[in-house]
Amino acid sequence: MTSRSNSYKAAGVDLRAAEETVDLISSAVASTYTPQVLKGLGAFGGLFAVPEGYAQPVLVASTDGVGTKTVVATQLERFEQIGSDLVNHCINDILVQGATPLFFLDYVAASRLEPTVVAQVVAGAAAACREAGMALLGGETAEMPGVYAPGQLDVAGTIVGIVERAAVIDGSTVRAGDALLAFESGGLQTNGFSLARHLLGERLDDSLPGDELGRTIGAALMAPHVSFLPAVRPLLGSGLLKAMAHITGGGLPGNLPRSLPAGLGATVRRGSWPEPAVFGELVRAGGLPDAEAFAAFNMGVGLVLVVAPEAVAEVRAKVGSLGGSRPALHHIGDVVTGEGVTIV
Amino acid sequence: MTSRSNSYKAAGVDLRAAEETVDLISSAVASTYTPQVLKGLGAFGGLFAVPEGYAQPVLVASTDGVGTKTVVATQLERFEQIGSDLVNHCINDILVQGATPLFFLDYVAASRLEPTVVAQVVAGAAAACREAGMALLGGETAEMPGVYAPGQLDVAGTIVGIVERAAVIDGSTVRAGDALLAFESGGLQTNGFSLARHLLGERLDDSLPGDELGRTIGAALMAPHVSFLPAVRPLLGSGLLKAMAHITGGGLPGNLPRSLPAGLGATVRRGSWPEPAVFGELVRAGGLPDAEAFAAFNMGVGLVLVVAPEAVAEVRAKVGSLGGSRPALHHIGDVVTGEGVTIV
Repeated sequence: MTSRSNSYKAAGVDLRAAEETVDLISSAVASTYTPQVLKGLGAFGGLFAVPEGYAQPVLVASTDGVGTKTVVATQLERFEQIGSDLVNHCINDILVQGATPLFFLDYVAASRLEPTVVAQVVAGAAAACREAGMALLGGETAEMPGVYAPGQLDVAGTIVGIVERAAVIDGSTVRAGDALLAFESGGLQTNGFSLARHLLGERLDDSLPGDELGRTIGAALMAPHVSFLPAVRPLLGSGLLKAMAHITGGGLPGNLPRSLPAGLGATVRRGSWPEPAVFGELVRAGGLPDAEAFAAFNMGVGLVLVVAPEAVAEVRAKVGSLGGSRPALHHIGDVVTGEGVTIV
Repeated sequence: MTSRSNSYKAAGVDLRAAEETVDLISSAVASTYTPQVLKGLGAFGGLFAVPEGYAQPVLVASTDGVGTKTVVATQLERFEQIGSDLVNHCINDILVQGATPLFFLDYVAASRLEPTVVAQVVAGAAAACREAGMALLGGETAEMPGVYAPGQLDVAGTIVGIVERAAVIDGSTVRAGDALLAFESGGLQTNGFSLARHLLGERLDDSLPGDELGRTIGAALMAPHVSFLPAVRPLLGSGLLKAMAHITGGGLPGNLPRSLPAGLGATVRRGSWPEPAVFGELVRAGGLPDAEAFAAFNMGVGLVLVVAPEAVAEVRAKVGSLGGSRPALHHIGDVVTGEGVTIV
């Protein structure tokens, strides 16, 4: 993680804070190292041996952030959360193509960085990496005076995963009549926060009407972005998954069609999965038409699996557990001839 | 580059601007695709086949930004420049371990993104990727209202390269008496900008006293971050390079020792390479003692090669060309018993 300390020096500011940060995070980072991480081979970039046993290994990479969930996290001082949200978002982004994680690199920037804040973000990221068996291979922490608004920070990250070429999930076998099975998101994950803050940002400490967990609006907005890797891992390579869609920015209509071949769309039955109370509150506060709500938020759907109708029972039986229990898998709709997503 | 458009949707703002950005950048991005990029295999993460022909392939990854060079770039509207600077910085970061680039992912964020600005950053990044034979495999563009100062933006990126395990350059064969050969940086590269802006930020339009190219202070500050890959590539795998150091934040004292084994330091002879006029101006403006100037800026040294004294002539003969001509390689000092860097 040399570049982490290095970047502080780059900005010409507060070397002591830089060293303090590195001290705080080094054991968290080291706790993620898998056997592929080559230590002691120089101190610049992170070195990672390509795992053996693949006939045609394909790397799958994605960069993402957590949007302005950072603003809510800053208000509520929930910094570990955005570190783990960042990692889990990226895990799901490559999981939909059948890839499992190898390593992650994070980027944390602000006008002025507090070592304890950076340490919390990295601790959260490291915990999520460890959970996924992924190495936190590197990172950069940048102080950017004048670029960020006072007190705000941004976090972004890059994941690199691997998949056997023949096992890439690409949607090519999807047919009309295939079933759409959904895992619950539990909340906004990391998308739609600029709109959500606009609608509910002044009411973070209010209790959330109808919330099944009795949370404040702020706590419900901070609901974790779940990694679906443990649930989906037993299905990878089984041939049962024809396609998957991670429901991020753009919601169901923005993400589901991307996983389907041309000429196919989806019918989704509202009411076939539970919509967390926070979405109802957002819709009420904004007077949002359904189409707008579904385009801005995931509305409770975290990840969609596309499977043959005759495979539904086997998929349900093989799903792995999340947080100690097997997650609900809702049959929310079906693939149809046409295009786009029709919510009925 | 779906996640690029997707992230706009995520922020709930200006979908038309998002689509315009994607239109503007898609051909630049496609121009970087190498044969390893697997197109048409799904629309989420970027897919990249691990190149064949390596006995023990090792991936080398690094995330970095360009610091507050973004602020100067914004003032001077030189957005392509920061895209190529970002890529070249990352290329050099993994080059020092002997790795050549495979692919890159960029991250561009601001309170409000102008499609033409994003397009210029990505065009610059794509050009530098093409130059290096590297694919611009993915990227994320995030609108973060309230997080960034008005009119400012941040750019960061992640590089993944590859090296044969036996060819990793790790400094283990460095001995006292080895020669330090340096390529010129031509300017600040992408480090020390917060201090430089503090000292010279009001004088960007003034002409730079003593500048060999007759530039303004602003133009000299924006001097490109050069990729040393074309110069060093003919030497990779030759066994002639014992270590390399990319002189970024922290300057010679912060970076050179990281490339040397414990118990060894360096003596560097000032005057053995040309110091661009911008460094003299920074030192004058800040009344900086030498130690402070060398810790904040590269002082004209871009990349250092550590080679056996008897190999110097062969290294000079094998160096590749940069921008059409063979770059000067200055013998700036030697490895000595001890620690740290002594400037004499």
